[in-house]
Amino acid sequence: MSEIRQLAEKAREAARALALTSTKQRNEALRAMASALVDRQSEIIAANDEDMVAAQANGTAAGLLDRLELNRSRIHAIADAVRDVAALPDPVGQVVAGYTLPNGIELRQVRVPLGVVAIIYEARPNVTGDAAALCVKTGNAVILRGGSLAARSSVAMTRVLSAACASVGLPADSVQTVEDTSHEAATELMTLTGMIDVLIPRGGASLIRSVVENARVPTIETGIGNCHVYVHEKADPDMATRIVVNAKCQRPAVCNAAESLLVDESVHTTVLPQILEALEAQGVTVYGDEKTRALGAISSIEPATEDDWSAEYYELKIACKVVSGLDDAIAHINRYGTGHSEAIVTEDYSAAQRFLNEVDASTVYVNASTRFTDGGEFGLGAEIGISTQKLHARGPMGLAALTSTKWQALGSGQIRE
Amino acid sequence: MSEIRQLAEKAREAARALALTSTKQRNEALRAMASALVDRQSEIIAANDEDMVAAQANGTAAGLLDRLELNRSRIHAIADAVRDVAALPDPVGQVVAGYTLPNGIELRQVRVPLGVVAIIYEARPNVTGDAAALCVKTGNAVILRGGSLAARSSVAMTRVLSAACASVGLPADSVQTVEDTSHEAATELMTLTGMIDVLIPRGGASLIRSVVENARVPTIETGIGNCHVYVHEKADPDMATRIVVNAKCQRPAVCNAAESLLVDESVHTTVLPQILEALEAQGVTVYGDEKTRALGAISSIEPATEDDWSAEYYELKIACKVVSGLDDAIAHINRYGTGHSEAIVTEDYSAAQRFLNEVDASTVYVNASTRFTDGGEFGLGAEIGISTQKLHARGPMGLAALTSTKWQALGSGQIRE
Repeated sequence: MSEIRQLAEKAREAARALALTSTKQRNEALRAMASALVDRQSEIIAANDEDMVAAQANGTAAGLLDRLELNRSRIHAIADAVRDVAALPDPVGQVVAGYTLPNGIELRQVRVPLGVVAIIYEARPNVTGDAAALCVKTGNAVILRGGSLAARSSVAMTRVLSAACASVGLPADSVQTVEDTSHEAATELMTLTGMIDVLIPRGGASLIRSVVENARVPTIETGIGNCHVYVHEKADPDMATRIVVNAKCQRPAVCNAAESLLVDESVHTTVLPQILEALEAQGVTVYGDEKTRALGAISSIEPATEDDWSAEYYELKIACKVVSGLDDAIAHINRYGTGHSEAIVTEDYSAAQRFLNEVDASTVYVNASTRFTDGGEFGLGAEIGISTQKLHARGPMGLAALTSTKWQALGSGQIRE
Repeated sequence: MSEIRQLAEKAREAARALALTSTKQRNEALRAMASALVDRQSEIIAANDEDMVAAQANGTAAGLLDRLELNRSRIHAIADAVRDVAALPDPVGQVVAGYTLPNGIELRQVRVPLGVVAIIYEARPNVTGDAAALCVKTGNAVILRGGSLAARSSVAMTRVLSAACASVGLPADSVQTVEDTSHEAATELMTLTGMIDVLIPRGGASLIRSVVENARVPTIETGIGNCHVYVHEKADPDMATRIVVNAKCQRPAVCNAAESLLVDESVHTTVLPQILEALEAQGVTVYGDEKTRALGAISSIEPATEDDWSAEYYELKIACKVVSGLDDAIAHINRYGTGHSEAIVTEDYSAAQRFLNEVDASTVYVNASTRFTDGGEFGLGAEIGISTQKLHARGPMGLAALTSTKWQALGSGQIRE
């Protein structure tokens, strides 16, 4: 049996035991995990150092190196996040629906763990802590498969987290890592039908594509974000500028950052120049259509190509298009958007209503930045990712997204006539 | 562009229009569909006659022929079912959650249509009416791909349903049928990533396997049922007998019928003979383990093989095993069951509680027949299938299972700090 299949077998066994634990036991495990991360931080940092040295030797980009690095304060932050999850209400056991059937059967629909959750992610050691905490909290066994750059960090963290689970009587296999970081191992994980209850890829477009192409187990697509801000003719110009700049610049490398700006033709000569100037002041490169470029508002606007309408830049770049009005804007967004987060800026009631109802995305905003699409911001307490698909969960996924339900039927001898 | 892809393109367009219709318009469409089925029944019956003649010429089994046949009373029954769906409450637009964030953004999570639903099923013309009604009710465009035996019936019914939609101003492409009933066409449908929001296979194990193997679009597995009735040592013998006989015999060819009987060793000599006699009286063939056979309770018990523990007979056959107790029963069910419906018969409180919590299935029963797992019986009003997976929906799927949600955020200029 392959390493991956063995892991999955052990995860299934752990999931069966986890499903029978109490909220109290699982919260205790989370607190033990948080303490262990801090207590054994030297061990984790030493492993991370090896990852960092290898990554630097490979000429890894500074941004990636920054995401890879673990230090004392980051480990404390991860431990704090794990403790925060322990403090959240437990969705498992929640009765979602319940009633008595005409024949007297008492029926109730109860939240239960999914079982085995697999998470494929990139070289971000904090995800290891987050994902493990969210899964154990909800009674799921988790199989983590992080990026190869962070291989040693992941193994070290998982060793600590797994021991912490065992220290309070939960299965050590509640948290496991796939040590083999090859593509083949990831693909095998994606095809373990009947052994993995859900696979959540957290990463860029190429990871998501690979999962869509290869996965045979149920999956949830996350985090693909070509988000738009649409400045309607009835927009407040200053609010529009503030929202566009925030949506693009506040943290450009994340999936809820804006990648495209749409402006109504009727106001593009009046409102767009001030937005472009504000973007330029933030160092944003603008890829504009002809009408945007013809404004000559800022020193340089690159010509937008068809690719720019679909681009997820994840950096200080934005595509800009002048649209004929609301219909044109909605059509453009529904064509090029990825169904993540879309915003209109307008003071017009009917335009706002139409945008909310007609734009097909996980989250639609009126007069607010797309950057709010986040489990923490939405008050979900934690987030395992942002779903851009429509099945099971859509938008920021909190603890409930890591559960399924089960119908329990209490009878007194009923048979069907 | 292939026929299938063209269908899907048209379905997407129809879905965009459907998403903007009101509950009233969609209910009107359903009533028009019901009336049209009756008004144009001769046309449908003529097409069905051709299917029947061809099926008979191919030597199709009587059971299949019966399921294939449409006559006036069956068409009336289908039309009535469509009208019943029109009368159900509409889940679309329902606010699932809603609150104001600390920053003043008013957030609400609203049920929306999934978009394009594809349903692959077998030669059961009634599914054509049901599925179309459930999808249009929830604002989804549907692509139907029925079995080849019913090809002419499906095309005729779809023509009628589609025209009925158009007659009240809904897109004619709200309901479409894949006329090409080849496996290649089905496989193409399963791989239209980004065009099909969910694929629901309704059929036997081989269809489900093909979907798991080939699908690249999100799917919901349905209707695989290896269901058990477990007679605990504290069971009421008469109740146990009634429940086992009902679960096996009331309608053996459906997924919630029992396929396996487990009986505690401590009572197998006292309770099992009466159950076996009752099964024998109903013409059930029993595949028993050694202890069952050693009872010599009825004239003939076939020796059970390993395959019998996994068998979905869908006919008057049952596997029977003597288990050492509750732990053994739960382990057996979790190993061989398909996560559909599982029942314990017992008067023991703790045994009932453990069974409810530890058996991993969509529906778990105490002292009731497994035959109740059904959208109608559960009060969901209608059913698009019974999910045996854990994502999105589990157990009988009513209208809500055909919806997704969307977050709507009403701001007043909020940006993220």
